[in-house]
Amino acid sequence: MVRTLIPHPQHFLSFGFSVGYTPAPFPKRSHNCGALTSLDVDSRVVLAGWLLPERKVSKSLSFFPLRDSYGTTQLVVHSPARYSPPGPGQACQPTDLVTQLARIPVESIILIQGHVRLRPEKQRRPGPAGDVEVLVSDFTLLNPADRHMPFLPSDTQNMANEDLRSQYRYLDLRRPELSGNIRKRSQVAHIVRTVLNQQDFVEVETPILLKSTPEGAREFLVPTRAALAWGSDPAKVQEPLFFALPQSPQQPKQLLMCSGGVDRYYQLARCFRDEDGRKDRQPEFTQIDLEMAFVSWGNPNLADDPWRIGGHEVRDVVEDLVRTVWAQIEKISLPDRFRVMTYYEAMRRFGSDKPDTRFGLEIVDVTSCLPASTFTALRHSGETVGCLSARQSGDIAFHPIAHQCPTEDGLDRVVITSENMSSWLVDSPTVRGVSPHGDEWARGNPSKMLQLQPGDIVWIGKQRHRPEGGSTALGRQRLRLAELAQSRGTYTPTRTPHFLWMTEFPLFTRADAEKNLFAKGRWSSTHHPFTAPAWQDVQALYDGRISEVRGQHYDLVLNGVEIGGGSVRVHDAMMQEYIFSEVLQLDKHEKASFNHLLHALRCGAPPHGGIALGFDRMVAILCNASSIRDVIAFPKTSAGTDALLKSPAPVHKDMLYQYGIRYR
Amino acid sequence: MVRTLIPHPQHFLSFGFSVGYTPAPFPKRSHNCGALTSLDVDSRVVLAGWLLPERKVSKSLSFFPLRDSYGTTQLVVHSPARYSPPGPGQACQPTDLVTQLARIPVESIILIQGHVRLRPEKQRRPGPAGDVEVLVSDFTLLNPADRHMPFLPSDTQNMANEDLRSQYRYLDLRRPELSGNIRKRSQVAHIVRTVLNQQDFVEVETPILLKSTPEGAREFLVPTRAALAWGSDPAKVQEPLFFALPQSPQQPKQLLMCSGGVDRYYQLARCFRDEDGRKDRQPEFTQIDLEMAFVSWGNPNLADDPWRIGGHEVRDVVEDLVRTVWAQIEKISLPDRFRVMTYYEAMRRFGSDKPDTRFGLEIVDVTSCLPASTFTALRHSGETVGCLSARQSGDIAFHPIAHQCPTEDGLDRVVITSENMSSWLVDSPTVRGVSPHGDEWARGNPSKMLQLQPGDIVWIGKQRHRPEGGSTALGRQRLRLAELAQSRGTYTPTRTPHFLWMTEFPLFTRADAEKNLFAKGRWSSTHHPFTAPAWQDVQALYDGRISEVRGQHYDLVLNGVEIGGGSVRVHDAMMQEYIFSEVLQLDKHEKASFNHLLHALRCGAPPHGGIALGFDRMVAILCNASSIRDVIAFPKTSAGTDALLKSPAPVHKDMLYQYGIRYR
Repeated sequence: MVRTLIPHPQHFLSFGFSVGYTPAPFPKRSHNCGALTSLDVDSRVVLAGWLLPERKVSKSLSFFPLRDSYGTTQLVVHSPARYSPPGPGQACQPTDLVTQLARIPVESIILIQGHVRLRPEKQRRPGPAGDVEVLVSDFTLLNPADRHMPFLPSDTQNMANEDLRSQYRYLDLRRPELSGNIRKRSQVAHIVRTVLNQQDFVEVETPILLKSTPEGAREFLVPTRAALAWGSDPAKVQEPLFFALPQSPQQPKQLLMCSGGVDRYYQLARCFRDEDGRKDRQPEFTQIDLEMAFVSWGNPNLADDPWRIGGHEVRDVVEDLVRTVWAQIEKISLPDRFRVMTYYEAMRRFGSDKPDTRFGLEIVDVTSCLPASTFTALRHSGETVGCLSARQSGDIAFHPIAHQCPTEDGLDRVVITSENMSSWLVDSPTVRGVSPHGDEWARGNPSKMLQLQPGDIVWIGKQRHRPEGGSTALGRQRLRLAELAQSRGTYTPTRTPHFLWMTEFPLFTRADAEKNLFAKGRWSSTHHPFTAPAWQDVQALYDGRISEVRGQHYDLVLNGVEIGGGSVRVHDAMMQEYIFSEVLQLDKHEKASFNHLLHALRCGAPPHGGIALGFDRMVAILCNASSIRDVIAFPKTSAGTDALLKSPAPVHKDMLYQYGIRYR
Repeated sequence: MVRTLIPHPQHFLSFGFSVGYTPAPFPKRSHNCGALTSLDVDSRVVLAGWLLPERKVSKSLSFFPLRDSYGTTQLVVHSPARYSPPGPGQACQPTDLVTQLARIPVESIILIQGHVRLRPEKQRRPGPAGDVEVLVSDFTLLNPADRHMPFLPSDTQNMANEDLRSQYRYLDLRRPELSGNIRKRSQVAHIVRTVLNQQDFVEVETPILLKSTPEGAREFLVPTRAALAWGSDPAKVQEPLFFALPQSPQQPKQLLMCSGGVDRYYQLARCFRDEDGRKDRQPEFTQIDLEMAFVSWGNPNLADDPWRIGGHEVRDVVEDLVRTVWAQIEKISLPDRFRVMTYYEAMRRFGSDKPDTRFGLEIVDVTSCLPASTFTALRHSGETVGCLSARQSGDIAFHPIAHQCPTEDGLDRVVITSENMSSWLVDSPTVRGVSPHGDEWARGNPSKMLQLQPGDIVWIGKQRHRPEGGSTALGRQRLRLAELAQSRGTYTPTRTPHFLWMTEFPLFTRADAEKNLFAKGRWSSTHHPFTAPAWQDVQALYDGRISEVRGQHYDLVLNGVEIGGGSVRVHDAMMQEYIFSEVLQLDKHEKASFNHLLHALRCGAPPHGGIALGFDRMVAILCNASSIRDVIAFPKTSAGTDALLKSPAPVHKDMLYQYGIRYR
């Protein structure tokens, strides 16, 4: 008879063995399976855990590995002859122990009593509880597992497909890799909160039931029954009313700074974005959100610091935060100051606004090597010509795979030979396409400039002198080369994380109605309409030289991945109104949705700025996880659905009625 | 000319004075206004803060109080003759200082440089920066406030009404009382997290976009565009699909425990409830949510411990947590063990399932004093008769106001006189109503039992022998007396917080379709359908003696307010199915929504239990705030609307279209 805890009277008939009640207060766990060490040898222990399938049952000596959320311990059960009779309260006859344990389905949860001993030397293993084993004297079946499990989480050799694992997430979470990620996430969150608390930041919860904005693409809406309570206009009451879930707590945190009640705010904020399924995006995600009052508009250490915009107070906090996390979690000591690069430099040298600086392959501007007429034509069109080269001599990681690497649209690819050494650039379609009169004498030698030899491979492409957008074709080619080299094993990224601040983005971008929410006028905000201009460019803003205005925005990039972004905000109501009306050309209705913010700025708002760091992404990098789904306990699928809870789901029509809506 | 930071060129024309740019990197704050002490005397300081209206301007000596989020400092400006000429970089002529400061609208934010000195002895005050003042040498106007503010937050003598303060919450948050609450909330959150981290709890974020349940009253729904991605049945795709916001993360946290990946979970979880405006309820609120695997079903210290159900591991954690919070925030040392009372005892003695034990006024059962026929009739109807008395001798706090206190419906109120001393009980309408033959000899003397004297006041009412619900008429009368006595000043509650655990609730309650979600059968769950029965009552459950089954549920009560509740959960799938099908009589469709939970229980789920503590309520008590709105940065009004952001709001019909819904 197997003892079990509070069963249904007919519970275990299906398991083929009979059961008996155990007194309700079962013994308390004394240790965690994964935490036993050689220091515990000879201790009596009470462990609870899940039975793994790798059991070895024999007549003299049997082994049952037992896993809890800290690791796995080897249980040992000797043949009956080795046991003394059971003490009082030991319901199990020792003669039954092996037989009974062997009957219990794998992944059942049991509680055992036993004592710890050293494993025979040859059987010791590195890792948690690898040196010891536990001789079992008694056990209780806490809850049996079904014999027909959808999959066995311990079978990592034949992992179930992701769909099945999503559907039974509670089983997948038994994999130590996954539960380890969830545990690490909690550790990182606690470090973040502790650092920010030490720096006098106040954690403030902002509303999740927020305001729907007129341009509300990407928002989730929440219909509400509050219609009757809100507003006295009877015509309005007929209209269904909605909250919206925040894409970020941007407005609440700025209002908080305007209040002055708190001058340093942070929150691990849940945010929501209703986007069509994008790879590795979640409809709900978490950001480390912070905001500070009294941030400066310029850097007092201007002379020796590449950070020329304001908000260096935010930079200091974030660098301290990130350094502490990496020191405590990764045992890596990051530099005192993270590298700073302007958007202009990053686009020019790496063709990306989030350059991966772990490897070279920099883009070289060869415009000065072109014939004079081409040079002039390019200057008129505001363009330059750049090259990316994979050289046999210098780029040993990338040259071997360069031949197989597909070429980005819009680029020319040239293999250097002794014949084309002097003509490959001027003869390229890119250069020929600029000016039909390109047959004059070229002004410089690009092969010399790029140190090329026959056999080297070059990609040629045009770039804009005043860069736009997030990447260029040459920048994308550079990443393709690195990806292919990494997959082929010729390139292994350094373990040292490359943190990089990006600054001096243009404040406004030519409007693209497809992409931008506020694309009414010629210009839209590159980041958001609350970003302040660099103080050096305030006059240009008011003079209407919009394309010249740099924003006080900063992105934090890690290994080519943007993990955060923020800015110094506009704190001057008239400047904010000027941006809304004159630059973005919002209409009255659109502007009205910012009335409370404008009024708050008019009430003595301090200068302020902040940042939001992608917490899921940061933890995924720390866990070396390929997807943020691996660091979220209950993630949505890439289609934005919850495969475990089967959500979203239809609701009864009557429920919609009370919100004033119905199926269309 | 007043120096200001990055103004619009025409910014200050409306303020009646001209302005000049200041270099962008303004000096860094060296101190907080509210943190200056006599230790800072003679230091040079840079402060930033808001100008308060209580300025005193005179020709020789002027005072300007300056407030930041830490407190208020007195700024002093001497007459010009006392100043030396300005140093380099000092744009302000000292002769201008008083004039210029006096021109700045109140609630403007300024940055000052100056030095700290002791205030004249008579002007020193207790509280932050009360001993010192700052002699101003220079200032910069960081941002001016409008001269026409909706209200002045510093004017606490004439506080604006709550509607106005809600609408301009960013101004109201300047009140030190309110910002102090927000700061304390953050401190409490950090203590909670630190204690739980130390106890190996893992913080896990559970989904906010959760599953809509079939009985989903009180849920907020979130329409989703994911319809096309989810499910392959083309008929279903036509149907709009919804997420629902969680009322609590109950199912995710149980699934997490079933996974075993984490054996101790916590979260400061945002929860949502779409209820019609109730006093001091918020549609979104925060709870300290925790769950533990391997909680026992009984108490091993049974002999000397009134906690007889399981889950004492949860009790230990919560008591430790609460003790630490009260020790650190209130400097109050709470007892090692909180008092435990059964539901039966609380209902009998206090007529409430969340008794306020700070005062006496206990209900006394006088059934034994009644005539035999009445006694028998009451026994048949399962009732008792109870009395609440306010005695001149013993109840000095309550007797003085007892005459004015209105009587609850269903109670008799009697003033004891020398005439009715022996007959007041048997002559009362309550007792007469039980049995028409109540004229026999009464079996005991209730006046003696209650130690009554003429002039004392007694309330008489029936109570159920097996209590039901949350309160009785006598219990409500008891609270009415305390409230009135408190408002009249005859009773002042003790400062010592009275924590109390309530246990041994009935697991099921007679179904009330109005109140209960699962009210299909004769029974509904008193708390929720996942609560485990007391192990002593398992057999009664399976025998169908439903009314006798006590749950392993525990409520934490503070000063008569329920601040949390939790339970040991059912971990046995067959028991859970029995409860769903046989007791609650859920139909197939309703049960289907728990399929994932039932399956998770079948996969070796450990015994588990947890609790949720109302964080807003707990902080409100710690802040001595009358409403939880005073401890939430951006609360909703009592009607459930956001007066600041003007939310909820209508949305454009086109937006609804993509969700497959439209206005009805």
